[in-house]
Amino acid sequence: MVERRVPIPVHEAVEQVVAFAKERAMEWVPLEEADGRFLAQPLVADHNVPPFDKSPLDGFAIRAVDTEDATRETPVRLKIIEEIGAGQVAQKVPSQGEAIRIMTGAQMPEGTDAVVMFELTKEISEAGESFIEVKRSFQPGDNISFCGEDAKEGTPLVEKGRQIDAGIKALLATFGYAKVPVYKMPKIGIFATGTELLEVDEPLVPGKIRNSNAYMVASQVKQIGAEPVYLGKLVDDFDQCYDAIATALADVDVLVTTGGVSVGDYDYLPAIYEKLGANVLFNKIAMRPGSVTTVAEREGQLLFGLSGNPSACFVGFELLVRPFIHVGFCSEQPFLKRVKATLGRDFPKPNPFTRFVRSQVEFKIDRLIVKPTGLDKSGVVTSLANANGLLMLPGGTRGFQAGDEVDVLLLKGEGGPMPLSEA
Amino acid sequence: MVERRVPIPVHEAVEQVVAFAKERAMEWVPLEEADGRFLAQPLVADHNVPPFDKSPLDGFAIRAVDTEDATRETPVRLKIIEEIGAGQVAQKVPSQGEAIRIMTGAQMPEGTDAVVMFELTKEISEAGESFIEVKRSFQPGDNISFCGEDAKEGTPLVEKGRQIDAGIKALLATFGYAKVPVYKMPKIGIFATGTELLEVDEPLVPGKIRNSNAYMVASQVKQIGAEPVYLGKLVDDFDQCYDAIATALADVDVLVTTGGVSVGDYDYLPAIYEKLGANVLFNKIAMRPGSVTTVAEREGQLLFGLSGNPSACFVGFELLVRPFIHVGFCSEQPFLKRVKATLGRDFPKPNPFTRFVRSQVEFKIDRLIVKPTGLDKSGVVTSLANANGLLMLPGGTRGFQAGDEVDVLLLKGEGGPMPLSEA
Repeated sequence: MVERRVPIPVHEAVEQVVAFAKERAMEWVPLEEADGRFLAQPLVADHNVPPFDKSPLDGFAIRAVDTEDATRETPVRLKIIEEIGAGQVAQKVPSQGEAIRIMTGAQMPEGTDAVVMFELTKEISEAGESFIEVKRSFQPGDNISFCGEDAKEGTPLVEKGRQIDAGIKALLATFGYAKVPVYKMPKIGIFATGTELLEVDEPLVPGKIRNSNAYMVASQVKQIGAEPVYLGKLVDDFDQCYDAIATALADVDVLVTTGGVSVGDYDYLPAIYEKLGANVLFNKIAMRPGSVTTVAEREGQLLFGLSGNPSACFVGFELLVRPFIHVGFCSEQPFLKRVKATLGRDFPKPNPFTRFVRSQVEFKIDRLIVKPTGLDKSGVVTSLANANGLLMLPGGTRGFQAGDEVDVLLLKGEGGPMPLSEA
Repeated sequence: MVERRVPIPVHEAVEQVVAFAKERAMEWVPLEEADGRFLAQPLVADHNVPPFDKSPLDGFAIRAVDTEDATRETPVRLKIIEEIGAGQVAQKVPSQGEAIRIMTGAQMPEGTDAVVMFELTKEISEAGESFIEVKRSFQPGDNISFCGEDAKEGTPLVEKGRQIDAGIKALLATFGYAKVPVYKMPKIGIFATGTELLEVDEPLVPGKIRNSNAYMVASQVKQIGAEPVYLGKLVDDFDQCYDAIATALADVDVLVTTGGVSVGDYDYLPAIYEKLGANVLFNKIAMRPGSVTTVAEREGQLLFGLSGNPSACFVGFELLVRPFIHVGFCSEQPFLKRVKATLGRDFPKPNPFTRFVRSQVEFKIDRLIVKPTGLDKSGVVTSLANANGLLMLPGGTRGFQAGDEVDVLLLKGEGGPMPLSEA
């Protein structure tokens, strides 16, 4: 018996899925553990940065007016009346002809308005007192980092929904966030389906293959900032499957299954969705691989039925689960980055569906070049390991040729070659 | 007293540092915990993938020869003698005119050499027996995923030194790596220096600022796949500093300090390197920010003396510590990815040193556009939070103009806007 399914365009599938995303609840985590989490409140400067006028270098805090007439031929002599390091506050206020030795980061002493760096002075000791000679004039404000020049109190610095990285962490520390407001990580349950699946530590036997999808999806879940919960393999028994899924739905925020959504005799998921009373949003997407990808919804909870083919499973996760989770984190960039690139080789086979081809993207001087990394078959696991992008070829009746401009979804930032030459 | 330091070019600094990198020791970690770690052995296919000829779809396994004369007008009728799901092995061998119902992923039954998908057959029940009608001829090999077509036994699939991601994890699972050989994570000790530093949970007081560098560097350490060990603040006392550093060197693989490497009166690190008997590789790099960056070596162990200015500290880590660690992981891409981009605005100030400017990179249709994210001052922490690249401007006597072709180091992959339209 052949079931007829109506494929919907990829962007419609994405739109339907993200329409169910709700802003997640917030929790406070220690700053040390905040890497990779998503900010649940905007980060606002609660004080000026720097919080006071300070010296950006090692030198002498002076009154600029004292140097008005200084030249190489007629240097001005200033008496050093105190010395302060960063974190110290000067006790004295220089009068005419006086200066304070100051280190990088120290607060500008009262009465001073410029800093002369060590290199531009000559130090002199006389009768137990210290002096410097300054050979040029300075303007008020020379070599000062002004209070608030980096950030004024009240300025919003980072919007909510941003993923915390090293730079944001530096800001959080600057503004005293010992604990950070972040979105709670959703728990994403993962079921693999199929009696052909062996666990990773089982030896191969005829007719069976190892379960690679569950590990791959768990890795993708971590990558997007959520918590994977591997729930094991579903067996080929309808009632046991149903019970396992119904139980899991109470424990996780989102459920991902791999396999079992096709039209095969043992593909129970469609019937399970029905018995759960879940609303099937779609059960076919006009894309390759992964056309049988199914998403169902029950009381606002989503069940992602990804394909059992590794590459189709990978693509389905990135196209659907990633934006659903990231919209819940209020990210303004919830999707894989999409860029234009030049196709590096012919791709002659037309296909009525949009294709997502695991590819390698190279950054050339004036453009990106994209080349498929392997066989264009959805079961091919090896091509995934060398892909840093998904080439996106629109469906239609024609193939594509080297030199065509195409879209690519970037899977990750990545390293570059050694060494760093200056050229 | 002004110390004269001789600046060396950035690439020389990088080369000197990575010359001390040695391949790290290996350890075995559970596959579940392998994300982000670096492979310490190449991943080789220890069996063919698929391990047997299998059906890539739901349908019927047939003898192609039986369909030789099949046409729409004269369909061929085949008797279904058995039914197998994925993971099952057929017990029967079809004779002439017989077929086996087969599900996606199941092993091809002995005696069959092609698969007809459900959609191209008509099923018929007669006298308790099942038949299909096939209306066209098939060739041997039609619709079969052949043993080894994805990967042949013995093929090296992923070289050592690669960072484990979702795709590589799928391969590791496929080849039965319940435990994965990875390089041990180096422990990177982090000291902040400066009495001006408050801890993140301390209230602001005059002259002091919060310690943001230690948190930022800890985040960078995690990002490159190493383990941060925050050792606290060094106080402004030479002997205490010396003891703390000497003790730390016994506990960590690499030591990073922030601040204290300049020529200020409280910049003890140069003297501490001397007392430790450490060999100072360089104490000035021809770059902005971070020209005072110092690296010393003692018995093969490196001490990175990064600047206390947040941006200079960030840049110093990415340019020096990152490649040092990643070369130890045998990565072939140990450096930040370097790409060409078009400068998006004028940058008129010339500088004799190479500049690394925190910037935002935009991917346009035919090029990347790069724009500085903030003030070009090394103490400016806010610009780091919005940077996804470091614009690299060579030193010289001229400034740069919008439209100039420049180099950019990409700091990360990142998200894209919603939604995914097909256009």
